[in-house]
Amino acid sequence: MSSRSRTRPIAFQGERGAFSEEAARRLAGPEVAVMPCARFEDIFRAVKGGRASGAAVPIENTLAGSVHENYDHLVNFELPIMGESSVRIVHNLIAPKGVSFSRIKRVFSHPVALNQCLDFFTAHPQFEKIPFYDTAGSVKMLMEEGLTDAAAIASAVAAEIYGARILRRSIESDRQNFTRFFLLRTPEFARRHPVEAKDHTAWKTTVVFSTRNIPGALFRALSAFALRDLNLTKIESRPLRGKPWEYLFYLDFLDRVDSPNAQNALNHLRELADFLRVLGCYPKGA
Amino acid sequence: MSSRSRTRPIAFQGERGAFSEEAARRLAGPEVAVMPCARFEDIFRAVKGGRASGAAVPIENTLAGSVHENYDHLVNFELPIMGESSVRIVHNLIAPKGVSFSRIKRVFSHPVALNQCLDFFTAHPQFEKIPFYDTAGSVKMLMEEGLTDAAAIASAVAAEIYGARILRRSIESDRQNFTRFFLLRTPEFARRHPVEAKDHTAWKTTVVFSTRNIPGALFRALSAFALRDLNLTKIESRPLRGKPWEYLFYLDFLDRVDSPNAQNALNHLRELADFLRVLGCYPKGA
Repeated sequence: MSSRSRTRPIAFQGERGAFSEEAARRLAGPEVAVMPCARFEDIFRAVKGGRASGAAVPIENTLAGSVHENYDHLVNFELPIMGESSVRIVHNLIAPKGVSFSRIKRVFSHPVALNQCLDFFTAHPQFEKIPFYDTAGSVKMLMEEGLTDAAAIASAVAAEIYGARILRRSIESDRQNFTRFFLLRTPEFARRHPVEAKDHTAWKTTVVFSTRNIPGALFRALSAFALRDLNLTKIESRPLRGKPWEYLFYLDFLDRVDSPNAQNALNHLRELADFLRVLGCYPKGA
Repeated sequence: MSSRSRTRPIAFQGERGAFSEEAARRLAGPEVAVMPCARFEDIFRAVKGGRASGAAVPIENTLAGSVHENYDHLVNFELPIMGESSVRIVHNLIAPKGVSFSRIKRVFSHPVALNQCLDFFTAHPQFEKIPFYDTAGSVKMLMEEGLTDAAAIASAVAAEIYGARILRRSIESDRQNFTRFFLLRTPEFARRHPVEAKDHTAWKTTVVFSTRNIPGALFRALSAFALRDLNLTKIESRPLRGKPWEYLFYLDFLDRVDSPNAQNALNHLRELADFLRVLGCYPKGA
C-alpha cells in the first residue's frame, strides 16, 4: 500500500460516531483515519477525486431495504466493491458524565432512531423525545451545550468519541436491525492491491443488469447461473423510471468473478441482458 | 359497503398531511375519514381490531427500497392488499400566511426531507435547517407557535390542512422520488366487497415465498411463472435472519390470482417452496 493511501482517510456519510464509521473501521482497520461527509454523493466524489482512499457505504438494511441511491452511485462512479460487512444497529442511551438517569427529561436523536426505541419510551413516559439531525450529532451537541437534563440515542462509538457515558445499552425495540456496508476503493487501488485469494467458496460477486420486461426474461437470465450451479445470495428487481417496461436487477452470487465458471455465466448473461456491469468481487462477510 | 365501513376511517402512519394521507385519499376516495397512527404496527392493529376500515401503507420507495417491516406485518396480520398507488414525493416550502420568503431564517422538517432538498439549501445559504419529528408535523407546529421567521418542508396537503401557504413548490433535488402504497382491508371486507373484474391484464398479484438456498432453487421457482408466460413486475430476495441459508422472496406478477393460469403457477410454486402466501390481488396502479 502506498503511504499516500495509508494516510488518506476512509469516507463515510454522517457525523463522527455514526454507524457508518463503525463499518469503516471494521472494513479498513480500527486505526484508519475517517472523513465524515454530508451526503452519499460526497463520499463517492471524495474517493473519485483522491481526497479519500476509500469509502464505507450502506447498501441495504434488514428493516428498510436496499439503498437504491448508492447502487446508482456505484454504477455512475465506477468505484469497485472490495469488501462487505453487516453492522447490527444498537441504540444506546447516552449522557454527559455526571448526568444520572433520574435527572433526564429530554432525549435527542434522529427520528428514525427515536422510532426504533418506542418500547423504551413507553416504559419511560417521563422522557420527551426530541428529533435531531443525526444520532451521533446529538451526542456531540449534548456535550458542547453541557446539557444536564438531557440524553441522546446513538452508537457506543459516539459515546466514546465525544467522551460521554452510556446509561442504558441496546434500547432498540427490534434486535434484528442490521445494515450491510460495502468497502469501496478506486479502480487503480483495486488493481494495485488485489484482495488475496484464499478460499474459493468465500467470495461474492455483485452485478447489476437490465432486461426488457418480457415474460421469462429474468428466468432466462438466471439460467446463466443455475445451469452452472452458481449460488445466488441476492436478487432484486427495480423498475427503471421513465422506461415502464424495463427493469434493473441487483444480483450477488458466491464465486470469484475471474473463475472460469463465473466468467462463462457472465458471458451467457451478457447475451441476454441489455446492460451488465460487475460492481465488484470481494470476500464474503461474516 | 356497510355504513359502518363507510364511516370508519382509513389508517395511515404519520401526522395529518403526511404523504401517506395523500395515498389514503387516492386509494379510498378524496372524502374518506382518516386515522393518523404513530407506527406501522399500529395501523395493522387498528384495521385488525375494527377501529379502521382499511389502511394505506408504504411498501417501497424509488430511493430507499422496500419497507421490509410492512411485508412482515402483511404476513403476520393477514390483511389482504386491495389496491396500489404510487405517490410522487414533492417537497414544498411552507409558511404561515403573511410570512414572506425574505423573512425566513429557519426551515423545519424531517431530516430525510431536509436532506432531499440540499440543492435548495445550497442556493439559499441564509436558511438554517432544523430537524423535526415529521414533515407535516412541522407545518402544524409553525402554525400553533405562530412563528414569523420560520418555514417548513412538507406536502401540499399539509399546507392545506393547517391553513398555511406554499412559498416555493417542488424544492426536492431528485424528482424521481416515488413511494408505492398498498390499500389494505380486512379479509371479511375483501370477501363482501370484491374489486370488480374488468381488464384481465390490468391485475397484479403479490406473493411471498421461501426456498432453501440451494443453487437453482429460485430458478426452479420462477419456472412456475416463466413456463406459463406470466409477467413478473417485482422480485426481491431477503435473507431470513437466524436462518443463514434460507431466503424470503417478494414477487408480483400480472394476472388475477383466480385465473386458471395463475392457479396452476401457484400450485407449481407450492411444490417447490417451503412457504407460500398470497398477500393480495388488486388492480394494477397507474
